[in-house]
Amino acid sequence: MDFVSIIIGSKSDYETMSECIKVLESFEVKYEFIISSAHRSPQRTQDYIQKAEEKGAVVFIAAAGMAAHLAGAVAAHTTKPVIGVPLCASKLSGLDALYATVQMPAGMPVATVAVGGAKNSAYLAMQIMALKDEELARKLKKDREAKVRQLENDSADIEVIL
Amino acid sequence: MDFVSIIIGSKSDYETMSECIKVLESFEVKYEFIISSAHRSPQRTQDYIQKAEEKGAVVFIAAAGMAAHLAGAVAAHTTKPVIGVPLCASKLSGLDALYATVQMPAGMPVATVAVGGAKNSAYLAMQIMALKDEELARKLKKDREAKVRQLENDSADIEVIL
Amino acid sequence: MDFVSIIIGSKSDYETMSECIKVLESFEVKYEFIISSAHRSPQRTQDYIQKAEEKGAVVFIAAAGMAAHLAGAVAAHTTKPVIGVPLCASKLSGLDALYATVQMPAGMPVATVAVGGAKNSAYLAMQIMALKDEELARKLKKDREAKVRQLENDSADIEVIL
Amino acid sequence: MDFVSIIIGSKSDYETMSECIKVLESFEVKYEFIISSAHRSPQRTQDYIQKAEEKGAVVFIAAAGMAAHLAGAVAAHTTKPVIGVPLCASKLSGLDALYATVQMPAGMPVATVAVGGAKNSAYLAMQIMALKDEELARKLKKDREAKVRQLENDSADIEVIL
Amino acid sequence: MDFVSIIIGSKSDYETMSECIKVLESFEVKYEFIISSAHRSPQRTQDYIQKAEEKGAVVFIAAAGMAAHLAGAVAAHTTKPVIGVPLCASKLSGLDALYATVQMPAGMPVATVAVGGAKNSAYLAMQIMALKDEELARKLKKDREAKVRQLENDSADIEVIL
Amino acid sequence: MDFVSIIIGSKSDYETMSECIKVLESFEVKYEFIISSAHRSPQRTQDYIQKAEEKGAVVFIAAAGMAAHLAGAVAAHTTKPVIGVPLCASKLSGLDALYATVQMPAGMPVATVAVGGAKNSAYLAMQIMALKDEELARKLKKDREAKVRQLENDSADIEVIL
Amino acid sequence: MDFVSIIIGSKSDYETMSECIKVLESFEVKYEFIISSAHRSPQRTQDYIQKAEEKGAVVFIAAAGMAAHLAGAVAAHTTKPVIGVPLCASKLSGLDALYATVQMPAGMPVATVAVGGAKNSAYLAMQIMALKDEELARKLKKDREAKVRQLENDSADIEVIL
Amino acid sequence: MDFVSIIIGSKSDYETMSECIKVLESFEVKYEFIISSAHRSPQRTQDYIQKAEEKGAVVFIAAAGMAAHLAGAVAAHTTKPVIGVPLCASKLSGLDALYATVQMPAGMPVATVAVGGAKNSAYLAMQIMALKDEELARKLKKDREAKVRQLENDSADIEVIL
Repeated sequence: MDFVSIIIGSKSDYETMSECIKVLESFEVKYEFIISSAHRSPQRTQDYIQKAEEKGAVVFIAAAGMAAHLAGAVAAHTTKPVIGVPLCASKLSGLDALYATVQMPAGMPVATVAVGGAKNSAYLAMQIMALKDEELARKLKKDREAKVRQLENDSADIEVIL
Repeated sequence: MDFVSIIIGSKSDYETMSECIKVLESFEVKYEFIISSAHRSPQRTQDYIQKAEEKGAVVFIAAAGMAAHLAGAVAAHTTKPVIGVPLCASKLSGLDALYATVQMPAGMPVATVAVGGAKNSAYLAMQIMALKDEELARKLKKDREAKVRQLENDSADIEVIL
Repeated sequence: MDFVSIIIGSKSDYETMSECIKVLESFEVKYEFIISSAHRSPQRTQDYIQKAEEKGAVVFIAAAGMAAHLAGAVAAHTTKPVIGVPLCASKLSGLDALYATVQMPAGMPVATVAVGGAKNSAYLAMQIMALKDEELARKLKKDREAKVRQLENDSADIEVIL
Repeated sequence: MDFVSIIIGSKSDYETMSECIKVLESFEVKYEFIISSAHRSPQRTQDYIQKAEEKGAVVFIAAAGMAAHLAGAVAAHTTKPVIGVPLCASKLSGLDALYATVQMPAGMPVATVAVGGAKNSAYLAMQIMALKDEELARKLKKDREAKVRQLENDSADIEVIL
Repeated sequence: MDFVSIIIGSKSDYETMSECIKVLESFEVKYEFIISSAHRSPQRTQDYIQKAEEKGAVVFIAAAGMAAHLAGAVAAHTTKPVIGVPLCASKLSGLDALYATVQMPAGMPVATVAVGGAKNSAYLAMQIMALKDEELARKLKKDREAKVRQLENDSADIEVIL
Repeated sequence: MDFVSIIIGSKSDYETMSECIKVLESFEVKYEFIISSAHRSPQRTQDYIQKAEEKGAVVFIAAAGMAAHLAGAVAAHTTKPVIGVPLCASKLSGLDALYATVQMPAGMPVATVAVGGAKNSAYLAMQIMALKDEELARKLKKDREAKVRQLENDSADIEVIL
Repeated sequence: MDFVSIIIGSKSDYETMSECIKVLESFEVKYEFIISSAHRSPQRTQDYIQKAEEKGAVVFIAAAGMAAHLAGAVAAHTTKPVIGVPLCASKLSGLDALYATVQMPAGMPVATVAVGGAKNSAYLAMQIMALKDEELARKLKKDREAKVRQLENDSADIEVIL
Repeated sequence: MDFVSIIIGSKSDYETMSECIKVLESFEVKYEFIISSAHRSPQRTQDYIQKAEEKGAVVFIAAAGMAAHLAGAVAAHTTKPVIGVPLCASKLSGLDALYATVQMPAGMPVATVAVGGAKNSAYLAMQIMALKDEELARKLKKDREAKVRQLENDSADIEVIL
C-alpha cells in the first residue's frame, strides 16, 4: 500500500498543512500525518521514518518554520524523495525556513516548494506517485484541464474584449 | 525506457549542469539533455516536452538563471515531476532564480533544489525513479553508506580525539 | 484601432489591477482585459496574444505575483513592448515577483514597474501609445501639470512658511 | 528624425552601456549618448532632455548605479517613455540601484530592466520605436527567429537525445 | 534668522513627519515645512530650495518613500547639509527608500537616519544648528540628561534587583 | 549567589522579554532585570555590569531592537558570556537587530539567539549555569523529556496513522 | 577533564575553523575536533555527542554552511551549550547558514556567532568554561587588556592628533 | 580651532577611510584621526571624545564594519553631530554595518552615508562646518561647479550628438 507520509514540526503548523491533506483526500490518495520535530524529538522522527517506509511510504512531506531542519532531517534518514514546505513562523517572512530547507548539501536533496506551499507539496507528491499509478496520473491531467476551465470562467466574469 | 530529461536555458548553464550529468552517468541512469529557453524558444520547449514524455521521460530537470522561468514553463506542459535548479547568472547571487523557481502558484509545483544544486537535481531525480527501480534504490542506499565512510575517512585525516 | 492589452494571472489580482483600468478609462484609452496564466493556461495565453496583436494591441500589460512568469511569457510570444507589474501575493513582500519580472535575459525585455504599480503600468502604456497619438500626448502633459497643482494645493493645506 | 536618447550618470557606467549602443547600431537605430548626472548636473540633465525631445528623441534610456535617481529625474522632465537600467556600482549587488529605479511613485513610471540590463534597454527602446517603424518591427521579428536558430545550434553541439 | 527647512514628497508622508515638527517645536527651533516632490514638481523643489537658503535655511530635511529621490534632489541644489528620512511607503519595508536615500555618489552626501526616523531628523538638524547656537547646545545636553532620568524611572517600575 | 543578569534597552522591550523571565522563574533560577540603554545611558550600563558581576552575575542577557548595540556594549565591559536577543522594533523585520547583534568582531562574541528569541535566551543562560549546577542540569534534561511527551500528545490529537 | 568539542560538517570547513583551534591552543584549552554531518552521518553525530559528553565535553561548537543544520542537530542531542558558526558555502553570502543556525525554536537554543566567526566561537566557549576555571577567566581578562594595547599601538602608527 | 574628529574601529578600516582624509586635506580642513573601538576599547573611545570636544571637535566621523556600533557609541557620548560610515568587512556586503549604523533609536541620530562612503563623510562634515565658515562654504560651491565641468569633459570624450 503506497502512501504519502506527512510530518509537521509543531502543532502550530497544522492549519497551514491541512490544505495539503485536503488536496490528497480530494484525489483519494492515502497518507499518514504526524507531528515530530527535528530538534525536540529526533529519535521519534527517525523511528517514524523507518516504520513508515516499511509500511509503504513512497514520498515524505516535511513542513516546518524558522530554522526549518525537519525536511533535511527526514532526508538524512531515507533515500525516498522528501518534499520540504518552508513555513512562515517568524518575523523573517519565511525566508529563514526557505533557506534552511532548500540549501541542502550535495547528495541530500530536499524537493522544496514555495513558502507556505502546502497545496503544492500534495501535488508534487502525487506527481511522483503517479509514475506508478496510471489512475492517479489521469486524475492529475483532468485536474489541469479543470483548472483551465475554472480560469476561463473566472475571466469570463470580468474580461473586457473589444 | 524510463529516462530523465534535462533542459537548460542557455549554453552558459552547461558547465554547472554537467555535474548533474556526471552523477546520472555514475549511476548508469539514462537521460536526455538539450538547450531550450522558456523565452527564446517557447514552442521548441513545449514540443520537446511532449516528445520526451512519449519516449519515456519520467522526470524533468530544468536549470536556468535570472528570472528563471524554465522550470515553471516545463511544469506548465506536463504533469510529470519537474525539478528546478536555480542558477546564479546575475549580480543578485541566484536569489532572483531561486524566487522565480520555487515560488510557484498552487497546483503547479516545481521541486526546487539549492542555488547551483546541479548534483542534487540528479539525486532527487534518481530518488523518484527508484520508486519503480529496485536496483537504483539499492544503489542510492549504497551511495549513502559510501558517503558516510568517505566522511569518516576525511575526519580521520584531521580529527583530534582526547 | 490601437489598444492596450492587459492580462492578469489570477482572479485575485483583479482588485489591484482595476487601478490600471481606471487610469486608462480616465484618459479614454481603449483596452482589453483578460485572465490568463503562464502556468495554468499557457496555450490560452499564447493564442490570446496572437489574436490581440492582430486586432491592434500595441502594448501589453501583464500582472502576476509570486514566481511571476506572466510578463516574461507574454514577451516570449510578441515583439511588442510588454509592461510587467510584480504583485505582492506571498510572504516575500513581492520581491519574488519583482525579481521574476525584471531579471529577464538579454533580447527579451520586460518593462517593469514598482511592486503593485498598477497605475504606473497604465501611464507607461499611454506614454508609449502617445508616440503615435498627439491627442494622448497632450493629455499626458496636462495630467502632469494638474498633478503639480494638486501637490501645491496639498501643500497649501499644511505648509509652514516663515 | 526619431532617435533614442541615452544618458549615463558617470563615466564609469560607459563600459556596461556600450552593450546598449552596439545593439542599437546593429539595428541601425539612431541614438544620442551623453553623460549627465541627476545629482552633479541636474540643470544640464534638464536642459538636455528638452533639447533632445525637440530634436526627435522618442524614448530615453537612463543608466545609473547606487541611489540611481537618473531615470526618475529624466522621467520628471518628460512624458516620453523612460527606460531605467540599474547598474551594480556598490557592494549592494545593484539592489540599491534596482529599488531606486523601479519603485517610482504613481504617475511617473520608469520602465525598468534587469540589473546591468544594457542590451535589454536597447531592445525595449526598439520595441517601442517599432510601433511607428514597420521596417524595425520586421527586423525585431527576424532577430527573434535568428535567436531560436542560434539556440538550436548551441544545443546541437552538446545535446544528448536517446 | 536660521531655520530648518523640511520637505516631504507627498501628503501621505505628513503624519510620520509631524513627529519631526513636534520635536523642533519643543526645542523652539524655527522651521519651514512644505510638500514638494522630486518627480512631480522638480522645478518647485529647486525654486523653493533657493528661496529657503536666501531666507536663512541652514539645514534641509527631506522625507520620502519608495524610490526616495527627494533628499538626493535637494542635495543636488544646495551645499547645505541635507538630512534624508527614508519612509516605508511600499511592500518593501522601507528598504527601497533607505537604499535610494543613503547610497549617494561621492561628493553629494545625504545624512540618512533610520527608516521612519522622523524624530532623529529633528535631533540631527538641531545638533548641526547647535554649532552656532549655544542655547540650543545646552538644551540638547539637558534633553540627554532628561532621557537618562526617564529611562531610570522606566526601569524603576519594573526592575528586579537581588 | 549565581544569577542571570537581564538588560533591556527600552521599556517597549519588556513584554517580549517577560517570556524570558517566566522561563527562568519556572526553573527557579535567580535573575536581575533592569532597563539600560547602550546609547541613552552608557555609563549606567557600564556601572551596572560591574556591580552585577561583583554580586554574582555569571551570564548576561541583553535584548534590544533596531541598531541593537546593547549586547555588544555589555560584551565590551565583561568577559562573562553575553547572550544577545535581537528584537523586531522597526519595519526591517528585526534583521537590523539580528545583524547588529550577531556580526561581532573577533575577540568579542555575543551568543545570539533568534529574532524575538526571549525563551531561548533563558534556556541558553541556564545551559551555561548548569555546568556548575547539577540540579539545574537535571531539570533541563527533564524539561526536554517533558517536551517530547508534550509533542507526542499534540500529535496524538491530530495524527493519522494507516 | 573539561574540554570543548568542535564538529564541522565537511572537510571544506576545515580551513576556516582552524582559526578556532588556534585560539583555543593559544589559551591552552583542551578540545576535540571531528567531521560529522547532520545529514550525511546523523547517527555518527549522535553517537559522538554522547561519547563526548561522557568524556567531559562542556560546550559544543558546530560549524556548517548552506542549510546549516549541524548546530541544531547537536543541540537536539545535548543540553550542554551549543555554539553555532554559520559558514559561507554558497552564493547566498552565508545568510542561508546564518538563518538556519540562529532561528532555532523555543527550548532549543544555539548560541550563534557571526558568519565565519571561527575565532569568536572559541572565545565564547572559553567564556563559558571560565565560569568554573579561574585561571582561564584571568587569561581572558589579560587578553582583553592586550587587545587594547594592540589597538593603541595600531593607532599610534597612523593617528593624527592636533 | 574647529576640526573634524575621525575614529575608525580597526586598522583594517584605514585604507578605505584614507579617502576621507584626502578630501579634507584638499579643502585644508583640520582633522584628528585615531583608531578606537566601541568594543575593544570603550573607555578609550569615551575619553577621546571628551578630549576632542574640549579641543574643538565640531563633528565626528566614525567608520566601522560588521555590527558597526562605533558611530552609535560616539553618539552616546556627545551631542555634536556624528557621521557614520558603514564599511563592508564581512560576507554580508556591508548590509550588517549599514543597519547597525543607520537604525538608531529616537533621540540619538547618526548621520549615515553610503556603505564605504568615505569621501561623502568628509563632504558632509565640511557642509556642516561651512555653516560657520564662509570660506569653506565658498570652496564647497566651487567644488560643485568643478564637478559639473569635469562631468562635461568626461561626456565630451565619448558623447554622441546627432
